[in-house]
Amino acid sequence: MLDYEPDLDKVFHALADPGRRLMLERLSRGPASVSELGRPLSMSLAAALQHVQVLEACALIRSSKQGRTRTCSINPAVLRRAEDWIADRRTVVERRLDRLGEYLAETADQ
Amino acid sequence: MLDYEPDLDKVFHALADPGRRLMLERLSRGPASVSELGRPLSMSLAAALQHVQVLEACALIRSSKQGRTRTCSINPAVLRRAEDWIADRRTVVERRLDRLGEYLAETADQ
Repeated sequence: MLDYEPDLDKVFHALADPGRRLMLERLSRGPASVSELGRPLSMSLAAALQHVQVLEACALIRSSKQGRTRTCSINPAVLRRAEDWIADRRTVVERRLDRLGEYLAETADQ
Repeated sequence: MLDYEPDLDKVFHALADPGRRLMLERLSRGPASVSELGRPLSMSLAAALQHVQVLEACALIRSSKQGRTRTCSINPAVLRRAEDWIADRRTVVERRLDRLGEYLAETADQ
């Protein structure tokens, strides 16, 4: 029961770091090299590469190397998967609370 | 720059554990005690309480104690906040890819 949707563990873990979220924010606007991703975070290339590897391991981004430059791009399908998990839960909660509200309003009317 | 939206670090960290996601899934259907949350995970009460504390620290859930029973309920506003962060990024990506697709289609026409 514990291992349903196993990739989401890695996806949410990747999203839990503010530097990685900033990298995703940058990549949402277009592909970028690892050093471009690290620069606004005042990060060494090695540190930036580690974060890139975490993002790539859960398929939130893809990367390819040409010469000495690794270029990264975002994978919206995986963002959508994480978003859907949260949205599905939230919808169930909100529908339940709506029904509860209606029930209480009816009870108050009677 | 690193500490924008600081709560999201904790929220995504909380979501990165499959047991905690299962607890949220249960709580989306209605309030539950800590022991009810731990039972399907074959978890001790102490282990379940630790997960509950992680969920409560980032306000994904709230809890209150009556006698010896702590009852938990989900907070959809915080789910929404995490969902919105992801959806905002995804929307930017998809709009960009749509524009790129249109550009490529126009270029192919010419």
